[in-house]
Amino acid sequence: MVKVFRIKKATNGNTDIVNITDDINKAVKKSQIEEGVANVFVRGSTAGLTTVEYEPGLKKDLKAFFEKIIPRNIKYYHEEKWHDDNGHSHIRASLLKPNLSVPIIDNKLALGTWQQIVLVDFDTRGREREIIVSVV
Amino acid sequence: MVKVFRIKKATNGNTDIVNITDDINKAVKKSQIEEGVANVFVRGSTAGLTTVEYEPGLKKDLKAFFEKIIPRNIKYYHEEKWHDDNGHSHIRASLLKPNLSVPIIDNKLALGTWQQIVLVDFDTRGREREIIVSVV
Amino acid sequence: MVKVFRIKKATNGNTDIVNITDDINKAVKKSQIEEGVANVFVRGSTAGLTTVEYEPGLKKDLKAFFEKIIPRNIKYYHEEKWHDDNGHSHIRASLLKPNLSVPIIDNKLALGTWQQIVLVDFDTRGREREIIVSVV
Repeated sequence: MVKVFRIKKATNGNTDIVNITDDINKAVKKSQIEEGVANVFVRGSTAGLTTVEYEPGLKKDLKAFFEKIIPRNIKYYHEEKWHDDNGHSHIRASLLKPNLSVPIIDNKLALGTWQQIVLVDFDTRGREREIIVSVV
Repeated sequence: MVKVFRIKKATNGNTDIVNITDDINKAVKKSQIEEGVANVFVRGSTAGLTTVEYEPGLKKDLKAFFEKIIPRNIKYYHEEKWHDDNGHSHIRASLLKPNLSVPIIDNKLALGTWQQIVLVDFDTRGREREIIVSVV
Repeated sequence: MVKVFRIKKATNGNTDIVNITDDINKAVKKSQIEEGVANVFVRGSTAGLTTVEYEPGLKKDLKAFFEKIIPRNIKYYHEEKWHDDNGHSHIRASLLKPNLSVPIIDNKLALGTWQQIVLVDFDTRGREREIIVSVV
């Protein structure tokens, strides 16, 4: 009833916004499920998932928004503990959250025409992220 | 196992906050599913879903909050490309996200007493939105 | 196909961040479901769910972030109506949202190593919260 797929995705970090719509659609196709839900989840505490019209202007705007409300260079107690530089990455990820559920109709994600699923990697270095897709 | 319903909902745009709890409960009732989950999703990249105590004061407060952290009249690269005016609509929608999952108990949404499901339309004009409810 | 569990959790309010990972994992274990999804939901309009690396520094950072973007002591129309003091609690909760879906692999939550599920109670007093876990 539930089919689970694991996807690996390399990112550049630093609020890198990566279009993963095709990857999720491939998993949906493999599942052969005609109608249902794709539950998408990224493991880790410095990345998140959302949807966006995937075009260069909005990628810049979204990065600028996160830098404005959760700046990189203010004081984070987290960084005192680990002598780390990614306090902002954690807060941005907790705000955006690691999960997204998208309906499936006719064995495809039922997104809007200008709506893509993106992985946003807030960490301060490139990472290989594991995304889990549970198709119901 | 999964029953899919499509709901059409007209909005006024401009961060219009529309109570869709009754619409979702009707779909749940039709599904005849006693215990499960209602996965709700709005198609498009300028609208989102959340819950709120639906009363006029909080509607004003929520609109004021979005205008404060993602103002309409700052520079958006998205608008340069399309000569458009809805850069803020996209960023607000990506932040709020298009999906919400609510448990079903006794063939009803198991919301809190003062908790309603709302569609928030951030676009700069009225739209007819398509909401997909997948009842598991 | 879907097993529902109800968890009660006492909080201190005031953006109290409570680690509920073990509670959710216990429900997953009881469900005996090997592969699937845990849909977690908190009832009420002044609390939310997300994931975070659960350590004291980040708890302080997350509280500071919410106080910065949604301050307690600004004007909220909600408070005029009810002569209440929790306008900020509602807006914070609507932003963070009450639901989280996490994949299950090998009868366990498939979280990252440093990723815990937290209940954030934004109300201005301690509450006993009801969390519903629907395991698919």
